[in-house]
Amino acid sequence: MSAKLTHQDDDGRIRMVDVGDKDETTRRAVATGRITMSQTAYQAIRDGQGPKGDALKTAELAGIMAAKKTSDLIPLCHPLPITQAKVAISASDEISGFIIRAEVSTRGRTGVEMEALTAVSVTALTIYDMAKALDKSMRISDIVLEEKTGGKSGDYQRDD
Amino acid sequence: MSAKLTHQDDDGRIRMVDVGDKDETTRRAVATGRITMSQTAYQAIRDGQGPKGDALKTAELAGIMAAKKTSDLIPLCHPLPITQAKVAISASDEISGFIIRAEVSTRGRTGVEMEALTAVSVTALTIYDMAKALDKSMRISDIVLEEKTGGKSGDYQRDD
Amino acid sequence: MSAKLTHQDDDGRIRMVDVGDKDETTRRAVATGRITMSQTAYQAIRDGQGPKGDALKTAELAGIMAAKKTSDLIPLCHPLPITQAKVAISASDEISGFIIRAEVSTRGRTGVEMEALTAVSVTALTIYDMAKALDKSMRISDIVLEEKTGGKSGDYQRDD
Amino acid sequence: MSAKLTHQDDDGRIRMVDVGDKDETTRRAVATGRITMSQTAYQAIRDGQGPKGDALKTAELAGIMAAKKTSDLIPLCHPLPITQAKVAISASDEISGFIIRAEVSTRGRTGVEMEALTAVSVTALTIYDMAKALDKSMRISDIVLEEKTGGKSGDYQRDD
Amino acid sequence: MSAKLTHQDDDGRIRMVDVGDKDETTRRAVATGRITMSQTAYQAIRDGQGPKGDALKTAELAGIMAAKKTSDLIPLCHPLPITQAKVAISASDEISGFIIRAEVSTRGRTGVEMEALTAVSVTALTIYDMAKALDKSMRISDIVLEEKTGGKSGDYQRDD
Amino acid sequence: MSAKLTHQDDDGRIRMVDVGDKDETTRRAVATGRITMSQTAYQAIRDGQGPKGDALKTAELAGIMAAKKTSDLIPLCHPLPITQAKVAISASDEISGFIIRAEVSTRGRTGVEMEALTAVSVTALTIYDMAKALDKSMRISDIVLEEKTGGKSGDYQRDD
Repeated sequence: MSAKLTHQDDDGRIRMVDVGDKDETTRRAVATGRITMSQTAYQAIRDGQGPKGDALKTAELAGIMAAKKTSDLIPLCHPLPITQAKVAISASDEISGFIIRAEVSTRGRTGVEMEALTAVSVTALTIYDMAKALDKSMRISDIVLEEKTGGKSGDYQRDD
Repeated sequence: MSAKLTHQDDDGRIRMVDVGDKDETTRRAVATGRITMSQTAYQAIRDGQGPKGDALKTAELAGIMAAKKTSDLIPLCHPLPITQAKVAISASDEISGFIIRAEVSTRGRTGVEMEALTAVSVTALTIYDMAKALDKSMRISDIVLEEKTGGKSGDYQRDD
Repeated sequence: MSAKLTHQDDDGRIRMVDVGDKDETTRRAVATGRITMSQTAYQAIRDGQGPKGDALKTAELAGIMAAKKTSDLIPLCHPLPITQAKVAISASDEISGFIIRAEVSTRGRTGVEMEALTAVSVTALTIYDMAKALDKSMRISDIVLEEKTGGKSGDYQRDD
Repeated sequence: MSAKLTHQDDDGRIRMVDVGDKDETTRRAVATGRITMSQTAYQAIRDGQGPKGDALKTAELAGIMAAKKTSDLIPLCHPLPITQAKVAISASDEISGFIIRAEVSTRGRTGVEMEALTAVSVTALTIYDMAKALDKSMRISDIVLEEKTGGKSGDYQRDD
Repeated sequence: MSAKLTHQDDDGRIRMVDVGDKDETTRRAVATGRITMSQTAYQAIRDGQGPKGDALKTAELAGIMAAKKTSDLIPLCHPLPITQAKVAISASDEISGFIIRAEVSTRGRTGVEMEALTAVSVTALTIYDMAKALDKSMRISDIVLEEKTGGKSGDYQRDD
Repeated sequence: MSAKLTHQDDDGRIRMVDVGDKDETTRRAVATGRITMSQTAYQAIRDGQGPKGDALKTAELAGIMAAKKTSDLIPLCHPLPITQAKVAISASDEISGFIIRAEVSTRGRTGVEMEALTAVSVTALTIYDMAKALDKSMRISDIVLEEKTGGKSGDYQRDD
């Protein structure tokens, strides 16, 4: 017998889970991901960090703004008043690409895992958009939840 | 010297590229990606495909709707009147997860790669949302452009 | 055997229908609907039309704006560049309520029936919102397509 | 003298009512509505519920997502953090159509009647969209509030 | 040495400021602004206030609705559940234009200055839109915060 | 007798003007505006342009993204497929503030004046948001249309 999905009621019908009885506590989530690409595209984006460039800053900002749209994108996700969001991109010569890390917090009745994961995804897509004239074979990978605190289900820390 | 990013003008300032002189042609893009998870979570979602379940259908629909929001999410992406969109999810026992494929078309002045990639990303995020009570260690990976047709820059076909 | 739904492919999977090969022609649709209520609520809203009132104007404007959001609300609806929209509300003592009529046009590859019907629905909901402190038993009814012109499938005129 | 609309100040000017002093309590609303159509269209949609079909599930999901957009659609409606939403569609041979029921909850300072009514409306519009190639004479009717709990104004139960 | 921007962390990276530890209190802000234009355009809009006209009411409503979209427009602005919003436009023969005043309140962890300023801006833009066929040289000016109450940083009252 | 507003029909009822018969041509608009502030706030934002700062880039990007939302903000504004958008901010010691210039193009049936003006407004609001902890008395002023080309009504060039 398979485990039960929380988004299905006893009739198997999809619903938005009721979180009205949960406490309003401080909740925080961190997610990461990466995008890898050709050396040419990688260097162009990385150098876009220089005095006048802003490719990575554009992508970080896109991620922050996407965190605020999460409940509009994910059908059964609850709307949440985000209290904090930040996205950091690190260039990595080793993987010829970029590591993305997003952190989101709220005071609310449900967690912000989806907000952090959405921020990482849209940050990666924005980098793709800006480099796609140079390389169409880029790969977005390893989008995972790193940690989560707050809420009744307890804290989570990814072990690698 | 690194290659030039199309989204930067001669001053290095970020802009939305001018596509006004491009022809309005039929353009199509296909993207894929995957999400892997524990056996327990995988089976719950896969069995959610049964007579009453609709976890995967919810995720497919979320992907289609996200394709229409692409220019709202990606800062320098042009708004496009999408003429067709579909998303298909296949369960894979082998990877203990799901393969997602999105196809988007338009009649427009620029391509729909970002729309197809966004559809795949949001489909994966929606699966994550529905299974996260069962497994927090899921991984979204290998989001890539498979093919692209239409437009002056020529067709693209990924070779694996 | 039942008729085939256009939004399902041969596998029964939901999709956004491909309209890329359709001609870009002038298309127009008219929809109507009504909301009925207690005499007290009806008079308050109707008198809200006076020198300083603007309850009905608020509702008409809400309908026009909703027409522009149609493809964001209806999952498989194509985004369309609306070229014209108007909504007119008529007070009717006879039904103790209001008759709503919306007309929408576009130059596009698919019709604007959904835009006109959405405009009527949101206009009615907005009237409900403004009168709900006076009457909770209001009824929104008879939302129908009155006529439709343009497009290959031919014109449609409702006969009553 | 007619009753006073809450959305108008003493000058008759439209405003969003101040709910800042209201208590944050659990509030819940249920709304219903129906869409009737030709036998052909009805059977196609109803059979779309089979092993591979998902017409009704698409419509239910559209209703849930619309509940989250209510304050964006209804001009003077307050934004609310919805804590729960579900939509259920029942096929009815008798009326040759579908009965829609939506239930929405929140912890907030104002009720969710508009969210429940919006969910019903958009669910009906989505069914219309998917069946409109088969029948253009469908009718959306009887959208009403069934019940409402929570808040100072007391509970409401429709009597039929 | 220049003052520190709150939206930058110690690395100078842009972020959404963390307001999770702030108290949820009643906060209120008032902003004003003006739009001036030719006599012809001014009179047309002003007379649009007559028995059937509604140019200014349209603009006021646009401002109220824009207040609800503030966090979607301003990248690092926190989403807030607005509890009250109103916009008032006064015609001024003296300046051949209109004075706009917006007032917004919330119960939340951060202020609503941006919501009030956004409401004024969009109200002015909407007036521009409706008069632009008559005058393209209109000027939107003097958008300022008039007062602000609530929150730890204390009240603010503009002195002119 | 006052001039006629294009957004009102013969009954004085507000509508979205019909542009369906207009030609689809290349249209372009340029708008400018300014925000002035205390020396302290000015320098903090201006220095935010340094190696790691990105306050002004954040504001420019917000302006570009807002151009895409124009028809969602301005009630009677037509949705348009923008083909190009850019925003440039110049620091001015002289005015202790920033000059904003936005340029938007489209291939469409109506102009992009509102898109350019909206981009300037939201850019200014975003600067305000980032400096408001330092100065609450900032002033957004002189938002005007500089030039406009394309369309039947002829070109417009502001003369100062």
